[in-house]
Amino acid sequence: MPSADTSTTDLARLIISCPDQHGIVAAVSDALTTLGANIITLDQYSTGVEDGRFFQRTVFHLPGLAARRPEVEAIVSEHLEPRFGMQWQLTEVERPKRVAIFASKTDHCLLDLLWRHRRGEIPMDITMVISNHPDLAADVRSFGIPFFHVPVDKADRSTAENQHLEMLRGNVDLIVLARYMQILTPEFLEQVEVPVINIHHSFLPAFIGAGPYQKAKDRGVKLIGATAHYVTEDLDEGPIIEQDVIRVSHEDDVAQLTQYGADVERAVLSRAVKWHCQDRVIRHANTTIVF
Amino acid sequence: MPSADTSTTDLARLIISCPDQHGIVAAVSDALTTLGANIITLDQYSTGVEDGRFFQRTVFHLPGLAARRPEVEAIVSEHLEPRFGMQWQLTEVERPKRVAIFASKTDHCLLDLLWRHRRGEIPMDITMVISNHPDLAADVRSFGIPFFHVPVDKADRSTAENQHLEMLRGNVDLIVLARYMQILTPEFLEQVEVPVINIHHSFLPAFIGAGPYQKAKDRGVKLIGATAHYVTEDLDEGPIIEQDVIRVSHEDDVAQLTQYGADVERAVLSRAVKWHCQDRVIRHANTTIVF
Amino acid sequence: MPSADTSTTDLARLIISCPDQHGIVAAVSDALTTLGANIITLDQYSTGVEDGRFFQRTVFHLPGLAARRPEVEAIVSEHLEPRFGMQWQLTEVERPKRVAIFASKTDHCLLDLLWRHRRGEIPMDITMVISNHPDLAADVRSFGIPFFHVPVDKADRSTAENQHLEMLRGNVDLIVLARYMQILTPEFLEQVEVPVINIHHSFLPAFIGAGPYQKAKDRGVKLIGATAHYVTEDLDEGPIIEQDVIRVSHEDDVAQLTQYGADVERAVLSRAVKWHCQDRVIRHANTTIVF
Amino acid sequence: MPSADTSTTDLARLIISCPDQHGIVAAVSDALTTLGANIITLDQYSTGVEDGRFFQRTVFHLPGLAARRPEVEAIVSEHLEPRFGMQWQLTEVERPKRVAIFASKTDHCLLDLLWRHRRGEIPMDITMVISNHPDLAADVRSFGIPFFHVPVDKADRSTAENQHLEMLRGNVDLIVLARYMQILTPEFLEQVEVPVINIHHSFLPAFIGAGPYQKAKDRGVKLIGATAHYVTEDLDEGPIIEQDVIRVSHEDDVAQLTQYGADVERAVLSRAVKWHCQDRVIRHANTTIVF
Repeated sequence: MPSADTSTTDLARLIISCPDQHGIVAAVSDALTTLGANIITLDQYSTGVEDGRFFQRTVFHLPGLAARRPEVEAIVSEHLEPRFGMQWQLTEVERPKRVAIFASKTDHCLLDLLWRHRRGEIPMDITMVISNHPDLAADVRSFGIPFFHVPVDKADRSTAENQHLEMLRGNVDLIVLARYMQILTPEFLEQVEVPVINIHHSFLPAFIGAGPYQKAKDRGVKLIGATAHYVTEDLDEGPIIEQDVIRVSHEDDVAQLTQYGADVERAVLSRAVKWHCQDRVIRHANTTIVF
Repeated sequence: MPSADTSTTDLARLIISCPDQHGIVAAVSDALTTLGANIITLDQYSTGVEDGRFFQRTVFHLPGLAARRPEVEAIVSEHLEPRFGMQWQLTEVERPKRVAIFASKTDHCLLDLLWRHRRGEIPMDITMVISNHPDLAADVRSFGIPFFHVPVDKADRSTAENQHLEMLRGNVDLIVLARYMQILTPEFLEQVEVPVINIHHSFLPAFIGAGPYQKAKDRGVKLIGATAHYVTEDLDEGPIIEQDVIRVSHEDDVAQLTQYGADVERAVLSRAVKWHCQDRVIRHANTTIVF
Repeated sequence: MPSADTSTTDLARLIISCPDQHGIVAAVSDALTTLGANIITLDQYSTGVEDGRFFQRTVFHLPGLAARRPEVEAIVSEHLEPRFGMQWQLTEVERPKRVAIFASKTDHCLLDLLWRHRRGEIPMDITMVISNHPDLAADVRSFGIPFFHVPVDKADRSTAENQHLEMLRGNVDLIVLARYMQILTPEFLEQVEVPVINIHHSFLPAFIGAGPYQKAKDRGVKLIGATAHYVTEDLDEGPIIEQDVIRVSHEDDVAQLTQYGADVERAVLSRAVKWHCQDRVIRHANTTIVF
Repeated sequence: MPSADTSTTDLARLIISCPDQHGIVAAVSDALTTLGANIITLDQYSTGVEDGRFFQRTVFHLPGLAARRPEVEAIVSEHLEPRFGMQWQLTEVERPKRVAIFASKTDHCLLDLLWRHRRGEIPMDITMVISNHPDLAADVRSFGIPFFHVPVDKADRSTAENQHLEMLRGNVDLIVLARYMQILTPEFLEQVEVPVINIHHSFLPAFIGAGPYQKAKDRGVKLIGATAHYVTEDLDEGPIIEQDVIRVSHEDDVAQLTQYGADVERAVLSRAVKWHCQDRVIRHANTTIVF
């Protein structure tokens, strides 16, 4: 299990991906060292030596980072990017991701995120909670977080989604669906321009769609699970970030499975959000690399 | 993992223990059936066929239970008790345990219990939260639960403990120490007359005493754990109800271990409290039977 | 996790199922006690109080069991069976299940069963190992178990299956498919008249069919699993007995997933076979009750 | 969980440790790249930025490795070692560790290692099995591995240990105690000059010493475990490599705990041996870093 980054001043993360080839690790190390940076951790993965794709997450310390960021970007874009055909992203550890949480009536995933945020366990700012129901307003506001009630008309989602887009645009780096029981349209996903993480209440790809605990009961499985994944246009088919399971027995009815499942859901979603906010998760086709 | 009892009307639990001998299961079944009761579940365990001790938990349905309770008690005390040398306890499922939670400044175990209580996951009434610090008052009161601040003088605990006893006496069936950082004196334990459950932040008997996460780091263990146990006069030596662990690595510092450990602590304590409130836990010498 | 029965002399197991109704537990206890039996353990489960089905597994000690077995059968069939509409089965703990293991080339599940059998962990006699390949003959025979090589013609399975039926008929109480890579025809399943347990190398119902580890890699799951189930005419759809999972990462290729998965497969299959041999597993529609 | 290295030709591992300071990652990368090597994976860990110690495991591909090994050693010893005060070790992936396994009468850990070795799961050559009992000779030899019976006189271990040393010296890189029930003297440990890995049948530091399952039963723990560690002069106190646990209940007697524990023991020991043979485990004071 990846652990948290603890100190943050003058720390940056450089996330890269490119076709696998000789010399990438050394070139990146050399470039950063030339700037005076000290490499703290460096994780890398290649899908294969021939025709593979290479991924690297480098955490480094550079005194005066905020002022010298353009220098770093220049070296990467002018030297590393063209040489290796590199895609890259540079983030400052001191600037947490701005997160909007979407919820409905169920509170366990939402409360777990709010509480971990308050404890400082996840490097994020929760800028708002949006819900299609008013029920959780008091809980959210007791954590000092704004709560917005945006009802959704299932026949025409555009009004609600336009309202969402107005509130979100420029204000968030990540959307988390914490048991939000509404479908996001492809149009919304295209326009929102930030990643969306969802928690599905089954061990995907088992029990895709609605009512997974009822399906699990009917099939007589001995473990139930939960899956955090990035949302794509294909429902329940997006890249998986994290999964976990819990043991159940023939004695447990659907209500009991739902109760046990809630514990797995909140744990899995919180880990996925934490890792995303630490830039540990890289999407590759329909899978993820989690450093 | 034992599951929750779901429906409650006219349901009772009969918990018995006695020297192991022939015919106990049949005699209990017969006595309850004669009364018109229907046995829902029946769990039993013997420590050994010779010189062993026998334990049984029977859940049964008896129409008009509240009115007919004296009849049940009469049959048990007049027939079963003398015949088998039986100790027994009869509880009505509809009457939840009344619980006082003791806490200090750390909120994770307390909040988990409050959340689960609100969701109806644990059959208990939380009648009060007592703390030696004022910090958690607002959190507790937002759940509609009374919060009492009782400072503790380490040099003389008697003032605080007398105050505790006054508040508790007759009002609670169980005390839960949710990371309460004060020692309870033997005098208090003797006078309080209800069971006390504590959560210890290690996999007992490893790392007894203070600072278990630091000790775990020093020893270089690869898993950390938590233990819920009944409190006895011997610190960290009482009967264990539930334990669990989580995987850690050399990368995790003591702060990170503490953070991971908090998740295990709250899960373990909540399970132990739930099982106790369902009368699933029977003490036997310094161990427990958990049906 | 259910534990092993340890002592066996004069011990029997009575497995019953019937429509749920009042008084079953008491009637069974009473009948056994009248015979002079002592009830050791008694597990029961009902799918619901109204229109539900009731299941019970009773382990009891009756001095002179072998001689008095007809008496027990008479009481059950003449009194309990008609009164409750009961299906029942009586087994003597001292008479282990006779088991035939089917294997192909892969050895991990087979060896694990042979080892556990030799250590006395599973109450079974392995009467034969049948394989469509000769490769594992020496391994099997080093355990003193007969090995039969029966090649299978995929175009016409009848020759091989008739040979199987001749060897099995009257000689076995259970067939275990320990990564046997041939399909059993519906005709064989109908004629063989004993239960067949299979191990599927995925967490069913995820990744039904061939190549589950490749499918798991393609989908990017973070846990892989294995499922032991009774074989029915519908491939991979039979009642699930046991499942488990293991954590994997993006780094693991299909070969590595297969290697990790082998550990889960052998553990899951061994548990399922053990529980079946202890008469702990009762089929109910397409699910199982595991006492 | 670290995964296996799959291809091996021309692959080497450079393991280093030194006081933490700026530029180590870049200097190592640069040195290897200058030689024409391609870095495959690079893991690193520091105990702290100030006064900390730095550890790195680098796997690299260098065409013609066997011939060019002296060049690599020269660069490391002449440039990196003096500059950073570095301790280092260079291993070729194609040269598996030579392993001697010590056993007594219990076979589960031994068999698991022999079987995984045969499957090619662990990059090692098992050069011999040494036992103080003759019981396991046939099992070992059926895997084509030499078995030596060396009885041990508890009053004077020197005769046996001298015989051990003669057989081992120059022939092995690692000793694995697979439930070997004899103490190794400090003299032996000093003279043998290779690491020794032991499996202890408890979740250390709980239940140090003999009879851990009895102690676990007496204390009433709800999980039992196993610990693989390097052997030092202090019994059961050496650096821990890997640990795991399994859930048990009040129903399990000591024999059953022992049986369940055996599964954990063999899994934990096999993982520890595998990781050691992949040079993933670095000792640091009384702990380990496992890359």
